[in-house]
Amino acid sequence: MCPQRAGSLVALLTDFGAQDTYVGVMKAVIAGLAPEATLIDLSHGVRQGDLKEAAFKLWQSVPYFPPETIFVVVVDPGVGTERRAVAVRWDKYHLVAPDNGVLSYLMAKSHCSQAVELNDPQFQLVPTSNTFHGRDIFAPAGGHLAAGTALEDLGSPISELQELKLPTLTLTEDGLAGEVVHVDRFGNLITSLGRLRRAAGGLHLSPWLPMLGARDLEGDMAVTLPDGARLPVGRTFGDVPEGQPVAYLGSEALLEVAINGGNAAEHFELAVGDPVKLEIRG
Amino acid sequence: MCPQRAGSLVALLTDFGAQDTYVGVMKAVIAGLAPEATLIDLSHGVRQGDLKEAAFKLWQSVPYFPPETIFVVVVDPGVGTERRAVAVRWDKYHLVAPDNGVLSYLMAKSHCSQAVELNDPQFQLVPTSNTFHGRDIFAPAGGHLAAGTALEDLGSPISELQELKLPTLTLTEDGLAGEVVHVDRFGNLITSLGRLRRAAGGLHLSPWLPMLGARDLEGDMAVTLPDGARLPVGRTFGDVPEGQPVAYLGSEALLEVAINGGNAAEHFELAVGDPVKLEIRG
Amino acid sequence: MCPQRAGSLVALLTDFGAQDTYVGVMKAVIAGLAPEATLIDLSHGVRQGDLKEAAFKLWQSVPYFPPETIFVVVVDPGVGTERRAVAVRWDKYHLVAPDNGVLSYLMAKSHCSQAVELNDPQFQLVPTSNTFHGRDIFAPAGGHLAAGTALEDLGSPISELQELKLPTLTLTEDGLAGEVVHVDRFGNLITSLGRLRRAAGGLHLSPWLPMLGARDLEGDMAVTLPDGARLPVGRTFGDVPEGQPVAYLGSEALLEVAINGGNAAEHFELAVGDPVKLEIRG
Repeated sequence: MCPQRAGSLVALLTDFGAQDTYVGVMKAVIAGLAPEATLIDLSHGVRQGDLKEAAFKLWQSVPYFPPETIFVVVVDPGVGTERRAVAVRWDKYHLVAPDNGVLSYLMAKSHCSQAVELNDPQFQLVPTSNTFHGRDIFAPAGGHLAAGTALEDLGSPISELQELKLPTLTLTEDGLAGEVVHVDRFGNLITSLGRLRRAAGGLHLSPWLPMLGARDLEGDMAVTLPDGARLPVGRTFGDVPEGQPVAYLGSEALLEVAINGGNAAEHFELAVGDPVKLEIRG
Repeated sequence: MCPQRAGSLVALLTDFGAQDTYVGVMKAVIAGLAPEATLIDLSHGVRQGDLKEAAFKLWQSVPYFPPETIFVVVVDPGVGTERRAVAVRWDKYHLVAPDNGVLSYLMAKSHCSQAVELNDPQFQLVPTSNTFHGRDIFAPAGGHLAAGTALEDLGSPISELQELKLPTLTLTEDGLAGEVVHVDRFGNLITSLGRLRRAAGGLHLSPWLPMLGARDLEGDMAVTLPDGARLPVGRTFGDVPEGQPVAYLGSEALLEVAINGGNAAEHFELAVGDPVKLEIRG
Repeated sequence: MCPQRAGSLVALLTDFGAQDTYVGVMKAVIAGLAPEATLIDLSHGVRQGDLKEAAFKLWQSVPYFPPETIFVVVVDPGVGTERRAVAVRWDKYHLVAPDNGVLSYLMAKSHCSQAVELNDPQFQLVPTSNTFHGRDIFAPAGGHLAAGTALEDLGSPISELQELKLPTLTLTEDGLAGEVVHVDRFGNLITSLGRLRRAAGGLHLSPWLPMLGARDLEGDMAVTLPDGARLPVGRTFGDVPEGQPVAYLGSEALLEVAINGGNAAEHFELAVGDPVKLEIRG
């Protein structure tokens, strides 16, 4: 009764942008290997070589995809150097990426169950270029997985993957101290102040962040920014007048700072890594 | 003999841009519900929260899609506030959108035949966020429609939809007065001076604009801009030398102003809503 | 055993950008004619009307697509003027485009085997606009090809296509003189200094460039830029420290100039057509 996908679903995340044909050529390679695959662009707008942004985007997006989706991730400032290319089984998904930490936010939730180094030329375009492994190594690996090749056939098993430092989140005397982890196209600031519930159990933090334990909470909450601005926590940006700033629990269950109809990142001059605090009074 | 689409066609129009993963995550949700659906990006480049631009883009594009296409429209500055989320049957199509007027240019052609408020949590991702109904409400509604759920099952029937003020177009002593309704990536100015024919019947205006009656026309036509510039009406921008301005009947049967190889919006410092006139001499 | 694509693969290359709905409407037309077709965006980020950029992108990308892919190319500054619209059979592919030279880099490799002018209104949207042949002529042609219509049925046979001047590449006393042929999103400069091998056979040049014969090579190589900068030829940009420039054989087997983590086009103030040299010492 339930309709099934004829082919695999392959999602692509890169920093290649839309100006060039790099993404189109990767899709050509995948479509040649797996004619029935359906391709979805997760985003190609990652800032050039920004591993933290790519890691955040994966963390944010992967759980919304159907089981067995194959992710091809190419944010790869070290292309052509010694860094490895890998494919991993994580949760219900396959991911193909450079081994530079880009998978590590996601895998802070839980470890991958299997990983291989993509070092078998029979699953690559040869001669392999030194600068476009998206086309020559990652797209072929994604295409072969989509066509049914088993993960373990793509290369040699490995046990350790590179990791990025996770965004900080620490308990303070009067609340939490964290940082900006992402700035979106609207200039909204997504912070590491996450997955808070003021329920009986106290603070519940996002599973990808270090667990800080629980604590009973009472009283009002406000987000404070480095310039001293102090924003009440509301429900959504539409709840304040146009041009007004507001903090709210965003769509990833992380606190966000926005200006209704405006650009909070520009207004407050904040970027990824800048500190933010949550004050809890009472 | 005629090949049929295995699954539904779903078209997406948003102001989410290409930098973030918002669109990719919406597609993930749709693909999970309707594995055989084909997804088409209508555009994600609507200016942030610009309902008039989104309404124009829908008006311009929907009629070119095959019957039974499902449109998922997310330009939603009021997300999380009291504005309703709706799904409608219009002509041969389904459309899913916030009830903020974004459908109203299209429905000035003809009314929708059926509309429901999307208020049934069984067709939503729960807990529903306050800021990303694209993922939590609109994509699920589109996905369920694509998978065969009937419109009336998605929520409660409603009878009235919000409307935007339509672009102006009025008869003057010597022609027509209208306004810029859209500026495209090339800086071409699309105006409300529309669907003109100098045939025996006189002026025939675009069906989405207030009908102004007919009038016999003779003589030359010219478009005049607020700064006094007066442009003859030609056939296409390629008909004038590079760098020269020209007015012509564009691909939507609306008069457009362009500069061959240049940017008319920048050159004439005009934007959506600015007045333009058509002078008809004779 | 080998999975087959149910429908055709159609790839689109335009200068329409992502802001407007032009590309979405073209896809709507194709999807209406060929419900089973799979659509791939090659790129829509060609600079407005830049035929050389579009020609380069096609040359660079087409060979990576599976046989029988249909390319719909709309970079068309002369739309609505006398320039012809054409469809051609080239190698294992079909291409649909304005006859303005955009196919000529590709066809410098080998001639097309068949070409027709798209002049049969039964395969067009009528009335045809003067400014959007992407929707009215090129997408319908691509859609009909994807649905199985034979090339020769789409219009009248023609024998000559327009050609662009090919990028220059000449032998000098101490190496090669060429030019910048493309600047990508990262600011990397792709040059016409191409397909070099320092093997016994000497210089092997890209087949799309005029053949210059072979010459034995010994010694070091360096790329020199108009401002006198002299860059050693490395393997990949990741091989030099961040902020440092490097030349290397890129993914198209053409020499490229990049700055690791930076923008070479901005730093060296170079654009398409600017001269670059390769010095070969020994």
